Amino acid sequence: MMITEAERDAVYKTIFNRRDVRGEFKADAIPEEVLMRILTAAHHVPSVGFMQPWDFVVVKDSTVKAKIKAGFEVANKKAVTMFDTEKQEAYKKLKLEGILEAPIGICITCDKSRSGSVVLGRTENKEMDVYSSVCAVQNLWLAARAENLGVGWVSIISHDTLREALNMPKDIIPIAYLCIGYVSSFYEKPELEKKGWLPRLELDSIIHYNQWKDVK
Amino acid sequence: MMITEAERDAVYKTIFNRRDVRGEFKADAIPEEVLMRILTAAHHVPSVGFMQPWDFVVVKDSTVKAKIKAGFEVANKKAVTMFDTEKQEAYKKLKLEGILEAPIGICITCDKSRSGSVVLGRTENKEMDVYSSVCAVQNLWLAARAENLGVGWVSIISHDTLREALNMPKDIIPIAYLCIGYVSSFYEKPELEKKGWLPRLELDSIIHYNQWKDVK
Repeated sequence: MMITEAERDAVYKTIFNRRDVRGEFKADAIPEEVLMRILTAAHHVPSVGFMQPWDFVVVKDSTVKAKIKAGFEVANKKAVTMFDTEKQEAYKKLKLEGILEAPIGICITCDKSRSGSVVLGRTENKEMDVYSSVCAVQNLWLAARAENLGVGWVSIISHDTLREALNMPKDIIPIAYLCIGYVSSFYEKPELEKKGWLPRLELDSIIHYNQWKDVK
Repeated sequence: MMITEAERDAVYKTIFNRRDVRGEFKADAIPEEVLMRILTAAHHVPSVGFMQPWDFVVVKDSTVKAKIKAGFEVANKKAVTMFDTEKQEAYKKLKLEGILEAPIGICITCDKSRSGSVVLGRTENKEMDVYSSVCAVQNLWLAARAENLGVGWVSIISHDTLREALNMPKDIIPIAYLCIGYVSSFYEKPELEKKGWLPRLELDSIIHYNQWKDVK
């Protein structure tokens, strides 16, 4: 099936306008059919050996959200102290999650045992199943943006906290906890770039041809 | 910026028609501006703490490709023996890579030291940088599909082989080696589904609400 130029441009528009959203969530409910469309998109990502190692835990319950928020607070307090003193002040000013504000949270996981112990394509690189679940995150993120939904990835939280809050077995790996909702606006650039945390790298400086060269 | 319904549908069309391509590559050259567009798309994926840990090694040289192909052969011979006897015959019939046929290979990597030792968002989960590079793979894959280019992820190859073939420092992690080119056709379903390797899971069976339930 051919993709037209107009369709291609729509894909690029979505890719370049996708943001990691923390502070702009609105409480508006996400219609059930929209939620199912973005989950279907996530489910149609490639997976190693077609094992489809992911599950999706959809969180709407405020008690569960409160546990996750508390887990973030613990991990974030620890995180602050790891930065140099001058970075700590800038760090503390950043809003890094929208767990309670976003109407929906989705935890995307990886079940390494999903299709048996030997998986086509995972024989050499044991992390390929985890990579498949990460690809599902990115598909969901772009599908959500195409639905004009914002998504924020909460990474400052321990696996154990997520497992406990979501009643998840020990052998399931929580890959991402995502906050999802409509937004008041999208930043025109990544928030950390806009706020001067780090600059965008020049693309030329990270492309090599045939052999690695330390060109940076 | 709003995404229209037509644009949203173009994103879904691209997501649902993306395939892992191994056997259908054509030799036709990829125009330089198309290559730069898909690399730019990969570079605009989210990254933890905006660290942008990826590099892109673009491979066109046939000597380098031959080294990578040889590395695949070694890893694949080992892989066959890991499957049960009845699966081995089916496995051997599958074409699992298009390293020599695809005009371009791209190795996407992760440099954990990219923005210093402490990274915003990587304080609790040390693999977040690797996940960022995996997200870049998925963005590139979708951008390529939007350009009507096929992409195949060669995972049956060791990191050491890739590092050696590409002259890559030891501390750089090769996340994915991708084969990229125009194709004679795209499968209408994932090749491994079509060929009966594994079935597509029912989406309902992998969605949980608020708490994990073993519903499968």
